[in-house]
Amino acid sequence: MGTEISSAVIRRLPRYYRYLGELMAHDVVRISSKELSERMGVTASQIRQDLNNFGGFGQQGYGYNVEYLYTEIGKILGLDRKKEMIVIGAGNLGRALANYSDFERRGFIIKALFDVSANLVGKSVNGIPVLHMDEVPKYLRENTVDIAAITIPKEAAPQVAADLVKAGIKAIWNFAPTDLSLPEGVVQENVHLTESLMRLSYKLRATEE
Amino acid sequence: MGTEISSAVIRRLPRYYRYLGELMAHDVVRISSKELSERMGVTASQIRQDLNNFGGFGQQGYGYNVEYLYTEIGKILGLDRKKEMIVIGAGNLGRALANYSDFERRGFIIKALFDVSANLVGKSVNGIPVLHMDEVPKYLRENTVDIAAITIPKEAAPQVAADLVKAGIKAIWNFAPTDLSLPEGVVQENVHLTESLMRLSYKLRATEE
Repeated sequence: MGTEISSAVIRRLPRYYRYLGELMAHDVVRISSKELSERMGVTASQIRQDLNNFGGFGQQGYGYNVEYLYTEIGKILGLDRKKEMIVIGAGNLGRALANYSDFERRGFIIKALFDVSANLVGKSVNGIPVLHMDEVPKYLRENTVDIAAITIPKEAAPQVAADLVKAGIKAIWNFAPTDLSLPEGVVQENVHLTESLMRLSYKLRATEE
Repeated sequence: MGTEISSAVIRRLPRYYRYLGELMAHDVVRISSKELSERMGVTASQIRQDLNNFGGFGQQGYGYNVEYLYTEIGKILGLDRKKEMIVIGAGNLGRALANYSDFERRGFIIKALFDVSANLVGKSVNGIPVLHMDEVPKYLRENTVDIAAITIPKEAAPQVAADLVKAGIKAIWNFAPTDLSLPEGVVQENVHLTESLMRLSYKLRATEE
């Protein structure tokens, strides 16, 4: 299961997960694809198609079991296991990640930040220590780390990514505005802020036509 | 032009724009879909299909004119006109946006940040003033603002978004982990960090199978 799912469906899964979590918080036990579609602003047939990828948790005329669907999607997303993270770069963006409470709630635990600035190294952010970049290899030998977030300028990002991979990192969450070349078996997810802003600009222009 | 383009193509356009910009910076005048495909890690036929949406800037066996394609995609993305922005929330994330030099280079100019914290109001970040949230309506009456970025907790985001729309904002760049209900004619683009992290988690789990 999971391996044949299209990337478009994967893109949407976290959103399903978020909405199902909100429904659970409101003690909703079952929901029809029609109701879910109205809340999420996607068509009911899209929802049925997407969820059919996972064996179709719904029953005709009876709706989806919210908690079951939430748990199953969580498993597909790998959220049934806690993930330990480090953040490379303790600038504003790195500190924003360290302060963001939503991650820990979803099982993503930031254990350390790394920076080169003498102003930052030795301090802590939200109780998380800021260590020197030179300590990354040692830290990765002594600790299990699943994910490294990169929040440094794009010029430095490729070398830092290569060093992280050499030290055993298998997943990179990249905020630098560049695409990293990573070896087979190492995954990345990019947050390209300028590209997101360009898509907003496109939408804005489209409304002005 | 533009209105019939699928959202999947729109998602990819900023990436084409970035790669074409890098080619221009390296004085590349023409490029074949094959070369571009190797650099970008997408198939050449995908590139041809995508760019055919815009009337096909390429000539068979002759490749694409890099600068022309860059300029045309820029127009489609609305980048031929500067955009003035405000940022709601001057916490770490808001300050990270204010310090991010890539935006200005693409024509997105942050003019002011807004916050409620007495520690922040009256200060400046990267030369950009931090004003009190109460001043938003007045600021929007006296200044032309194209885009408002929202970097505040999700509980406060819907009301703030509604107030911004009432004050005339037509485009919201939303970092709060919630989907905003906005009236017709107002566009939004979301940066849902936890969802991005969940997609990374999915990819990581998929490699472990």
